[in-house]
Amino acid sequence: MAGLTGLICPNLTPFEKDLSIAMDLYIEHAQRMLAAGCSALAPFGTTGEALSVGMDERMATLEAMVDAGIDPAKLVPGTGLTNLEDTAKLCRHAIDVKCAGVMVLPPFYYKGVSDEALFQYFSALIGTVNSPALKIYLYHIPPVAQVPVSVELTARLAKAFPGAVVGIKDSSGDWNNTKRLLTEVKGIAVFPGSENPLVEALALGAPGCISATANINAENIIRCYKAAGTPKAAELQEQIRAYRLPFQDMGAIPAQKWMLAHQTGEPRWKIVRPPLLPLSDERGKELLKRLETVLEPAA
Amino acid sequence: MAGLTGLICPNLTPFEKDLSIAMDLYIEHAQRMLAAGCSALAPFGTTGEALSVGMDERMATLEAMVDAGIDPAKLVPGTGLTNLEDTAKLCRHAIDVKCAGVMVLPPFYYKGVSDEALFQYFSALIGTVNSPALKIYLYHIPPVAQVPVSVELTARLAKAFPGAVVGIKDSSGDWNNTKRLLTEVKGIAVFPGSENPLVEALALGAPGCISATANINAENIIRCYKAAGTPKAAELQEQIRAYRLPFQDMGAIPAQKWMLAHQTGEPRWKIVRPPLLPLSDERGKELLKRLETVLEPAA
Repeated sequence: MAGLTGLICPNLTPFEKDLSIAMDLYIEHAQRMLAAGCSALAPFGTTGEALSVGMDERMATLEAMVDAGIDPAKLVPGTGLTNLEDTAKLCRHAIDVKCAGVMVLPPFYYKGVSDEALFQYFSALIGTVNSPALKIYLYHIPPVAQVPVSVELTARLAKAFPGAVVGIKDSSGDWNNTKRLLTEVKGIAVFPGSENPLVEALALGAPGCISATANINAENIIRCYKAAGTPKAAELQEQIRAYRLPFQDMGAIPAQKWMLAHQTGEPRWKIVRPPLLPLSDERGKELLKRLETVLEPAA
Repeated sequence: MAGLTGLICPNLTPFEKDLSIAMDLYIEHAQRMLAAGCSALAPFGTTGEALSVGMDERMATLEAMVDAGIDPAKLVPGTGLTNLEDTAKLCRHAIDVKCAGVMVLPPFYYKGVSDEALFQYFSALIGTVNSPALKIYLYHIPPVAQVPVSVELTARLAKAFPGAVVGIKDSSGDWNNTKRLLTEVKGIAVFPGSENPLVEALALGAPGCISATANINAENIIRCYKAAGTPKAAELQEQIRAYRLPFQDMGAIPAQKWMLAHQTGEPRWKIVRPPLLPLSDERGKELLKRLETVLEPAA
């Protein structure tokens, strides 16, 4: 589709000490990410602690973004819950505020459900929302949701609902899955859910990537995106891959928030909602130390 | 606690062909379960396809039950979602309609979270709802939710919030876990989430059980409950255990709904919401055949 390209940032959600959303900081960060060159934002993804945020809060935040002057054509909010009714409500709201699209998880409570059942779920969702403005990006994140959106299901949905199912974010972390989506599924935008395979994915037709690391490393990821196809691409790809490594065993969301607090000098960024726990300053300092090592080329 | 005893039925949720809740059937079944001797109902548990039902639908259904004359002192609705705000909203609503308690899942989107984080979640929930009428039954169902409520977490919550954390439904299917809860955690009601260990659990102080099979086999489970401590108990326990077996590989919820359709002659009971799929009549007939074999004592 003639849609979004480049780096899409699933923006982090800042909280106050009382765990309410820190709206000033939310808007400021969203604007900073766009100013840094992100082509769009995906508010309320896994990284944005979406499933720890209530429905009314999500809708109020989207409205606050648009009120603050953020172009809704650059917003693809997460709207997927475990049930049709509330997911449809969030989708309709996103359409009302003129978002470019919505990112939809499969219903993730019941496990071991079939592709046929998930196909019926998405069919019912599209029928319930019943709007030509509905642009669904499927959200495949099996490490967290456990319920997958398989390549076969993606292909079937793309074929059955052209114009409504327009893309997929593949956060499987499995390059073979991303490669299959890129080569086997026609007519939709396939975004890897990380910058790890950015250059390879672009070569196979991906329009860009949607990556949590954008929150803390946008400039370098964009540099790599722009260098794709040039001799510098491989080196830049290695650099952005290396930057991710030190975060891996720290708990990605608390660690990214700690880093953002460090980068911006704003301590509220360290706050997470339960059931996540904040990264301790001790661990944060270890993270900084590891990053130094990673970023210094070995002799 | 001086609370609920006996068989609590996590009542099934019937749907119309258009997938809206079949309210007449919902109320009729709820009343039938109470008339059959169930001491209480647990609407919107896993069996009630709670996570496939929207927030507004849940609240409207609870109100319809009370309006129909069902005593809210016999209702313990499920209110657990993945986030604090919406879970608190459903808890407050249940308190407003004077339910006996609420059954609360741990937040189940993020996996691998710590007991400390879950403790903070439930603490924040209790603080947010902020009502002496809040009576929480923890809901431990690791095969589905994946996120557990461990024995240690249960004990810590029971100790920290006496009067607010009043019980647990243990749907682990792991008798060792239920036994540990019954013997190690003081001051709360421990309900096995099935009738499989009913007699043993009652002997260790369980007040009863909360079991999906109540929907289709209430009389026999209640007979066993009443026979506990008598010479007939063991045989009745074996009978109700045997009745469950044929359902196991059929998909419990669609199979129970098919059976209820068969028992009541009401075809709407066969309908499930995606991502579940209905049991086919072919499989249903196989289920009936298996049940005959199970219920006929071997020669």
